[in-house]
Amino acid sequence: MSKAEITKAYIIEKSAPIFNTKGFAGTSLNDITEATGLTKGAIYGNFEDKNEIALAVYNYNVANMKRRMNEAIDSKELGYDKLFAYTDYYRRTWEKVFERGGCPVLNASVEADDNLPFLKRSVQNTIKGWIKSISDIIELGKEQNQIRKDINSAKYATTIITLIEGGIMMAKINNNHEPLFNALDRIETIIKTELKK
Amino acid sequence: MSKAEITKAYIIEKSAPIFNTKGFAGTSLNDITEATGLTKGAIYGNFEDKNEIALAVYNYNVANMKRRMNEAIDSKELGYDKLFAYTDYYRRTWEKVFERGGCPVLNASVEADDNLPFLKRSVQNTIKGWIKSISDIIELGKEQNQIRKDINSAKYATTIITLIEGGIMMAKINNNHEPLFNALDRIETIIKTELKK
Repeated sequence: MSKAEITKAYIIEKSAPIFNTKGFAGTSLNDITEATGLTKGAIYGNFEDKNEIALAVYNYNVANMKRRMNEAIDSKELGYDKLFAYTDYYRRTWEKVFERGGCPVLNASVEADDNLPFLKRSVQNTIKGWIKSISDIIELGKEQNQIRKDINSAKYATTIITLIEGGIMMAKINNNHEPLFNALDRIETIIKTELKK
Repeated sequence: MSKAEITKAYIIEKSAPIFNTKGFAGTSLNDITEATGLTKGAIYGNFEDKNEIALAVYNYNVANMKRRMNEAIDSKELGYDKLFAYTDYYRRTWEKVFERGGCPVLNASVEADDNLPFLKRSVQNTIKGWIKSISDIIELGKEQNQIRKDINSAKYATTIITLIEGGIMMAKINNNHEPLFNALDRIETIIKTELKK
């Protein structure tokens, strides 16, 4: 990496938890200079504007989340087991996810939907990719003859993400993991009673 | 109402859609003076600070949502039917809900959970009341002998709200009502297959 790339990566890393807890509108340039120890000039020498930092930070937070999830999912061979690796991931990591400000997709989604088009497009792509990734796991389970062939995988992937995001919202605002675990229980029931062959 | 109360109500009404689309941090005093046509002095003659306006606006948005929902629910006699009046409410009104910036509870929840304690407490109370209100409908259905007596009503109420909020998030970011309707389908399946006696 060049010196400029190293500085950019450093700014993104230090700003990531701030954007994910304070939100895009709630994060000021002062927050970023404080967290990085860099001057405003140094920040804007590396990024065109706050939008560019926000987008880079969003992509960084999502990439980290994906990497951690994929580690859990890749540890299983069977599509059927990979689905439980998903719910298990949230059961094991919710405290850390909450400490980091919660799900970056949920946070950016709610903030961007009405008035941040540059971020909205990225969130749409993340969700599209997320649905595709769970659908692929369900399709793998079909090929492995453990999941019913007549299941609409995209529809079930959407239901799973809906329950995860709704569960995180309900749990996080109440400082209580139970609503999230309730949502994960529901996902597991759906896997066992509707997806299982 | 006194003249001061009328002015306060006017400021709240005009600021309500701004806070619900731009968020708390994204709404400036300029936005409020523009929307109301009042001076900064007039705004701060009626409210102590932006927090007080935000809280009043949140309560106003939630009260309106509750009023509309209760109209739908009160139109049915039986607890079992009232539950379907809930999902039906969202099927009929999602476009208007989205135009107003989406669910005020979801918006405030995601923004307040990490760093707006004054708003967080109000959102917690809204959700607590919402769970209670759906639980009461389920309990009514039990008394009317249409809903299974062994059902944990608070747990099912939580699942219903989780699906609604997750569904609104997924639908709103994608400008597509299908993920919300998918969540409502799921709620109706749960009512028919798990709650029904």
